[in-house]
Amino acid sequence: MTGDVPLRPVGRVVSPLTDPATAPKQGDEGAPPAWLVFDEAYAPALRGLAPGADVLVLTWLDRARRDVLVVHPRGDASRPQTGVFATRSPHRPNPVGLHRVRVLEVDGVRVRVADLEALDGTPVLDVKPVLDGER
Amino acid sequence: MTGDVPLRPVGRVVSPLTDPATAPKQGDEGAPPAWLVFDEAYAPALRGLAPGADVLVLTWLDRARRDVLVVHPRGDASRPQTGVFATRSPHRPNPVGLHRVRVLEVDGVRVRVADLEALDGTPVLDVKPVLDGER
Repeated sequence: MTGDVPLRPVGRVVSPLTDPATAPKQGDEGAPPAWLVFDEAYAPALRGLAPGADVLVLTWLDRARRDVLVVHPRGDASRPQTGVFATRSPHRPNPVGLHRVRVLEVDGVRVRVADLEALDGTPVLDVKPVLDGER
Repeated sequence: MTGDVPLRPVGRVVSPLTDPATAPKQGDEGAPPAWLVFDEAYAPALRGLAPGADVLVLTWLDRARRDVLVVHPRGDASRPQTGVFATRSPHRPNPVGLHRVRVLEVDGVRVRVADLEALDGTPVLDVKPVLDGER
């Protein structure tokens, strides 16, 4: 197909969530606030990010499996297997997590966000503002 | 921070859009339908994807710059420079494109989608169904 493309983490999630077994699957299932802690080199890229903004955080789900192509939805073996591109399973060829969250606080290169279901230590790849059409 | 993480493209965009200078910036700005053509190895991952589904397509914006941290929004030099994490500029440390589109047709490993603003040849990284909270 083509060669690999290298992603460079720009920061990391600091969260009370440490156990994949008990972590919520989506942010609306009771995830706690968390900090996104960016590398100092990326401070300029945060300019203009402010509390109240709705953003999409892209993460690298470093504990996910990449060799899974089909899953039972929600882990329910009674449901027919579905391709991972038709589910939000973390296990997929490129396990990029997509989290829609609200910015609560910006403190230098630390950004506090609500309802982030990512595990502590998860690499952060990108932050994008939510567009009107995505609301 | 941490080492690079390798993304493996799972397919490619086939689109009439070939010129970055004239391509629309977002799908709601008049982008045409396009095909996502997946590698045969990923056929199982498409199981369950059907016409009418709203999906998020993640792409690798291989013609974007990765060394840009601030931009003038919409290229308007009269507007103050803003960090790329507060804009949807394609130029950013990890230029992952995020496109919300509707599936029009599924033909083997080819998936036709509406309103995709990605250029012809753009690598596809992932497809995720839109969640209720993202509608």
